[in-house]
Amino acid sequence: MAKQDNEKKKISESTIHRLSLYYRALSLLEKENYETISSKELAKREKLTPAQVRKDLSFFGSFGTRGLGYPVSELKTRISQILGIDRVWNVAMVGVGNIGSALVSYKEFQKQGFSIKLIFDNDQRKIGSNHKGMIVSDIKEMSTLLRENNIEMVILAVPAIVAQYIVDEVVEAGIKAILNFAQINLVVPDDVFLRNENMSMELEYLSFALSNQYTPG
Amino acid sequence: MAKQDNEKKKISESTIHRLSLYYRALSLLEKENYETISSKELAKREKLTPAQVRKDLSFFGSFGTRGLGYPVSELKTRISQILGIDRVWNVAMVGVGNIGSALVSYKEFQKQGFSIKLIFDNDQRKIGSNHKGMIVSDIKEMSTLLRENNIEMVILAVPAIVAQYIVDEVVEAGIKAILNFAQINLVVPDDVFLRNENMSMELEYLSFALSNQYTPG
Repeated sequence: MAKQDNEKKKISESTIHRLSLYYRALSLLEKENYETISSKELAKREKLTPAQVRKDLSFFGSFGTRGLGYPVSELKTRISQILGIDRVWNVAMVGVGNIGSALVSYKEFQKQGFSIKLIFDNDQRKIGSNHKGMIVSDIKEMSTLLRENNIEMVILAVPAIVAQYIVDEVVEAGIKAILNFAQINLVVPDDVFLRNENMSMELEYLSFALSNQYTPG
Repeated sequence: MAKQDNEKKKISESTIHRLSLYYRALSLLEKENYETISSKELAKREKLTPAQVRKDLSFFGSFGTRGLGYPVSELKTRISQILGIDRVWNVAMVGVGNIGSALVSYKEFQKQGFSIKLIFDNDQRKIGSNHKGMIVSDIKEMSTLLRENNIEMVILAVPAIVAQYIVDEVVEAGIKAILNFAQINLVVPDDVFLRNENMSMELEYLSFALSNQYTPG
């Protein structure tokens, strides 16, 4: 127990992802007017074990009453605080090609508090044009505009070949959180949080499942 | 050790995802003409521990020679076989809105062997039109066309409200692997592999990191 207390801060990557899942499940339950939910039911909805759910949620102090389950709204609020989505984040999108363009209109981002405030491209035909209600800014003005608009996160949807060059500028402008869609391993200083989104990974998971005829868990 | 042997088939979800990462790293190393790579170097490239890399790869028999490292091409081939990406998969895209449309031109899918053969929509203005070299088919003909074209995987990029209805039809047409982009928990029979892609999850990971000023090792 002492060990667990010491390691309280060491939440694993998969736990954070499961918190996102719980948050979604709880949002839905709230809409369906559920007041409480058991770990068993929450686990079933997310195809996890009740023990896993209890373990994940135990990181954040004691929740729920034996026999009654977790209070839906309270737990949802607590998870949103832990994930830091109980506020709005100012986000900039760099690159409005196929993926970048689709993401600008991805309603889920806005819904979770990720508000895209600026969009950038280097294509002269796109710069200055109205893109889904926002004016595309010149990437040359990126450093200045990121600072002036208090941007806190950057989504990078640029070709792999220019991604490192652009990420260096983003870092130089003081951004500490970057989500990269380019298929390349970017180098950033230790104090910058970088995540890579790879959409073919889930298809590879499916091809693994079909080839081996099983999925884990 | 006996226990580990018995559980050889039980590769975890995170291991499969890491295999995807290794595959990418090895593809790049091959291009850079590397013949061998140490677990230490591979770990460094993917920001993992060497022990983790060795553990993951040990699932698949013995690779590498102490002191020499893993043979790049051989390991890459082996991982592609494990992931089932040593072949081409016939994929259909259902829904060509913002996200679906962007994914049809997402080169990474094609590169990894996921070949989008058919695209469907229910919008009369889109049906029959040429969309990035492919004709948009009427969703009403989906069942027939999925069978006729030996489609093996379906990517679902439709509004949440119709997703369950459509997934039922997809399952009825004999599809056993589905990647869902709609923000809803879909119900499928046990013999159907379903994965959900949630692009705001990585942003939530970043907001967690910024709020708590750390990311898990």
